[in-house]
Amino acid sequence: MLTILDYAGVAVFAATGALAASRQQLDPIGFLFFAAMTGIGGGTIRDLVLGQRPVFWVENPAYLLVCAGVAGLVFFTAHLFESRYRLLLWLDAIGLAAYCVMGAAKGYAASGSAVVAIVAGAMTATFGGILRDVLSEEPSVLMRPEIYVTAAMLGAAVFMLAITLAAPLWLAALAGAASAFALRGGALFYGWRIPSYRPRPGRAQEESLKKDK
Amino acid sequence: MLTILDYAGVAVFAATGALAASRQQLDPIGFLFFAAMTGIGGGTIRDLVLGQRPVFWVENPAYLLVCAGVAGLVFFTAHLFESRYRLLLWLDAIGLAAYCVMGAAKGYAASGSAVVAIVAGAMTATFGGILRDVLSEEPSVLMRPEIYVTAAMLGAAVFMLAITLAAPLWLAALAGAASAFALRGGALFYGWRIPSYRPRPGRAQEESLKKDK
Amino acid sequence: MLTILDYAGVAVFAATGALAASRQQLDPIGFLFFAAMTGIGGGTIRDLVLGQRPVFWVENPAYLLVCAGVAGLVFFTAHLFESRYRLLLWLDAIGLAAYCVMGAAKGYAASGSAVVAIVAGAMTATFGGILRDVLSEEPSVLMRPEIYVTAAMLGAAVFMLAITLAAPLWLAALAGAASAFALRGGALFYGWRIPSYRPRPGRAQEESLKKDK
Repeated sequence: MLTILDYAGVAVFAATGALAASRQQLDPIGFLFFAAMTGIGGGTIRDLVLGQRPVFWVENPAYLLVCAGVAGLVFFTAHLFESRYRLLLWLDAIGLAAYCVMGAAKGYAASGSAVVAIVAGAMTATFGGILRDVLSEEPSVLMRPEIYVTAAMLGAAVFMLAITLAAPLWLAALAGAASAFALRGGALFYGWRIPSYRPRPGRAQEESLKKDK
Repeated sequence: MLTILDYAGVAVFAATGALAASRQQLDPIGFLFFAAMTGIGGGTIRDLVLGQRPVFWVENPAYLLVCAGVAGLVFFTAHLFESRYRLLLWLDAIGLAAYCVMGAAKGYAASGSAVVAIVAGAMTATFGGILRDVLSEEPSVLMRPEIYVTAAMLGAAVFMLAITLAAPLWLAALAGAASAFALRGGALFYGWRIPSYRPRPGRAQEESLKKDK
Repeated sequence: MLTILDYAGVAVFAATGALAASRQQLDPIGFLFFAAMTGIGGGTIRDLVLGQRPVFWVENPAYLLVCAGVAGLVFFTAHLFESRYRLLLWLDAIGLAAYCVMGAAKGYAASGSAVVAIVAGAMTATFGGILRDVLSEEPSVLMRPEIYVTAAMLGAAVFMLAITLAAPLWLAALAGAASAFALRGGALFYGWRIPSYRPRPGRAQEESLKKDK
């Protein structure tokens, strides 16, 4: 079951990378490049930081073939996919939910620390998309007021909480993935936002504006 | 022979990094930074992903000295080099040809997988230039409709095909490098392009435009 | 003493990351993300390249908690911090001074090479800020004509010179950190600049402009 989820996550993230390539009107190798960066980028950085060597797709190149297959599929069908952009956002939410739990499980196994596990879960679920946005020169998902990193951290945290409470692995994984999916899904469906920082001009700031200008 | 090619590749890529620094009118340390990022960046990411530790230039710091020497040379001679931009593109093509084969050889030795070897070859030959473009805030080579990543993948693939067919190492390396150089050179000389994705407006997409707007 | 400096460096760099998040008006998780990237990014890349595994904050997650604490603090007090931007630049200079020496010490221990040590010192002190600038889509510190990477390299070089001259560790560390701080501080206080590359139009370049246009 986890293995199927894993490949599905790679495939869905690879599809979002290939769609970014289609928006930039790249050639097939450009599709392949962005599919691979987005599909396996987050897990690659996780494995490097945790000291897994070599990284997962060097052990098992089937992940690369999944990315290549998705890139080819999207190259010829992107005009259809684009009409299903909302469907894709929901698939992406499924990928995020699966990945934050799997990243947390790997991080906990490697370090024994719940804090590291939560960070590893958030990294696995989000760094692929960040790489995609930086390299395709599109506005980064980090800058949009979206609940994205937050959903990944929540999922990883719920998973770790359940593990700490001695829940069986399958239940902890289910609870973590469901929490992440519910938060991300609510953000997509209802437009939920987290209050963001707003500058509050005050005496001190006005003074600094005078000095710094 | 391979060692000379290796240093020549580092030097040529370092020179393209230093030229990017000259376009940004940086100071000598900026030249050094971009020369090092471009010259050794691709191989560094390759070594990290393959689990080589430490990376090649920590084992053998002479690579860093080559980058430093090239950066100093370009700082005082960039006004001459710029007039030889086309020569540099051809030197860059030689570096690409050498690097995709060497990256593939390292990737195959580390993983035993031809797919991983091709990806490692393409990464080694292209990630230095990608880092250079992202950090110097210039339009990325990824976005231009150029045959670049494609040439690196072709070279690595031809090398792996020859190895699989039990060709001697020198012949496989020569065939791979020659293929990559021929494709990249043809792109430079004749302006070859790969057909890129063009949006095809159709019924489905028009509907989605209405819904998403 | 070194441990206190280490945590102080992480905290100061994390604060500059959180301030970047405040300029982008992000939510609290955005503050956390940028605080962590800036606070531990440079040391993470250093550890990966030197082959330390896992990286330092996986061994000791307290560094992550420092970043989280700083992010929370800055989220509620950024309007005060902004009025103290110059104070922060000076704290950042202290962090740079401490980090270039500690990075050089780690690099020398891992490789035995002074060149690698200097590069590792410069990486540790500067890559966190570079990641912050690239991901927050702000103009990179690399592009500004500031003495920043240069100060980090000087500090690492002075430290290595003192070690080579058989100075005791504490004296070498002090000399390195003081050199870096003096150069960076002079740049902040007096506006010191290093001569940067200026294109010199000449016969050769004019010809190339004609040809390339």
